[in-house]
Amino acid sequence: MKRVLVTSATGFVGRHTLPALLARGYEVHAVARHAPGNVAADGVRWHAADLLDEAQGARLIAEIAPTDLLHLGWYTEPGKYWAATENLAWVRASLGLLEAFARRGGRRVVLAGTCAEYDWTGDGLCDEARTPLRPATLYGTCKDALRQMVEAYARQAGLSAAWGRIFFLYGPHEYPQRLVAAVIRGLLRRERVPLSHGTQVRDFLYVQDVAEAFAALLESEVTGAVNIASGAGVSLREIVNRIAAELDGHDLVAFGALPAAPAGEPPRLVAAVERLRVEVGWRPRFALDEGLARTIAWWRGQV
Amino acid sequence: MKRVLVTSATGFVGRHTLPALLARGYEVHAVARHAPGNVAADGVRWHAADLLDEAQGARLIAEIAPTDLLHLGWYTEPGKYWAATENLAWVRASLGLLEAFARRGGRRVVLAGTCAEYDWTGDGLCDEARTPLRPATLYGTCKDALRQMVEAYARQAGLSAAWGRIFFLYGPHEYPQRLVAAVIRGLLRRERVPLSHGTQVRDFLYVQDVAEAFAALLESEVTGAVNIASGAGVSLREIVNRIAAELDGHDLVAFGALPAAPAGEPPRLVAAVERLRVEVGWRPRFALDEGLARTIAWWRGQV
Repeated sequence: MKRVLVTSATGFVGRHTLPALLARGYEVHAVARHAPGNVAADGVRWHAADLLDEAQGARLIAEIAPTDLLHLGWYTEPGKYWAATENLAWVRASLGLLEAFARRGGRRVVLAGTCAEYDWTGDGLCDEARTPLRPATLYGTCKDALRQMVEAYARQAGLSAAWGRIFFLYGPHEYPQRLVAAVIRGLLRRERVPLSHGTQVRDFLYVQDVAEAFAALLESEVTGAVNIASGAGVSLREIVNRIAAELDGHDLVAFGALPAAPAGEPPRLVAAVERLRVEVGWRPRFALDEGLARTIAWWRGQV
Repeated sequence: MKRVLVTSATGFVGRHTLPALLARGYEVHAVARHAPGNVAADGVRWHAADLLDEAQGARLIAEIAPTDLLHLGWYTEPGKYWAATENLAWVRASLGLLEAFARRGGRRVVLAGTCAEYDWTGDGLCDEARTPLRPATLYGTCKDALRQMVEAYARQAGLSAAWGRIFFLYGPHEYPQRLVAAVIRGLLRRERVPLSHGTQVRDFLYVQDVAEAFAALLESEVTGAVNIASGAGVSLREIVNRIAAELDGHDLVAFGALPAAPAGEPPRLVAAVERLRVEVGWRPRFALDEGLARTIAWWRGQV
């Protein structure tokens, strides 16, 4: 029996991983700072712990003795997480958790990385093997540094470790101030939505697909960094226009009303997904239109 | 008044930094797990704390409010430190200490790095700007990962940070099982000293020079990685022969009696020292013969 502990299990990605892991036959233990909340998933065993307190993390691992660890926990407050000191705290917490996991007999671990680990000044294709890692932010630096230590420690400790690099995502339970959520909420309220030029191309994946990909990666024996993404680029303008079409809001969308993206935001960021497709053997279920429709339906229920 | 906190202040390098810092006019606070021990340095204020316990480190910083931090603390048990889990613990402790230091108004920090951060498969010249960083061990990986986070955090927090990469060193108070110490001790006892082929070329610096270089680096405003080394390569065979000449022990030295160095130990490792010489403006005081003579004299007093 595989027994997985999922951290940040009430988070945007985490909550969607629970049914995916149950479906794959895992005994699922979920931890969040405050217990279950509104996350429904029959059969999940919930634990409340603050993983930034190392002793609480170690106690949890000792109690559960997980064979598998899906570590998604991090500081993700929009706008603030790029530069926040909390990044250092999460590196510390993650190393402590991993050590406790290995000591308690853990075998397979998957952690959440980020496209912000890559050099963003190149051609915009992010390939695990070929694109240099040159994070420009404290967030990206801490994630990349943690990955290096996890890989070295895993070799040492006999752990099987993979690192899923998340790109851009959207779906139910997103922070309301992030792009897709903000546009949908604004248009549902018939408010004007000011935006930048919108020509930035990004790799978007529906959050449920992101979660399914993490479950598939965990179940696989693939090690090292794996991009968790669609492999397809779409401009922000295109995404916004699709939402506007769905919500009859073209007149409310104001491209160019906000200053252009801050310096350093690259024109294009798209993931190479060969490792995810071929080695993990996973493909997305939700096309962009389907994902957006579901996201809109969810926000309708919230407003 | 500059107030410096030195960690691992009873350690091999740390103890030699204390007089160097006093001579440069710092108010010197020294911390070690167990208080002073046999380290004599008038005017040093001693503190006992276990920095692996984050709360103790934070309390110390709060109490002293250092303007400068010279962080040398790490796990260094010979033979074990390359692969030890303690490397992860020291990354955690170092990040916590640095954060506490920045929060308490600290301004300038220097940390100890290592030549093990460099790719050792090249031509053997380790240059801060040109040699790739590709550590092959958990120790080197953790040091390099910490450096990346320190640099990113320092930019963020407005700290001035430098990273002194230590190469090979010798002198009084070295671990007795390390090369120079072991050869001297064996020959003082007229024992046979079994060695490998000894053709490996390394960059050796007398420990008091290493300590002086750290003091100079701290006092400078140089940031980023700086090799702390002599810039000159010497074969292990040459060093051993000089010791044997001094102690009339050529007949006791058995080159080739031990198997050749383990795979991965490179034929040559020598530091580029332009940053140290030109930017920091520092040069070694002790030539190899002088350093060896002082080291031999010290061990004579111990045996």
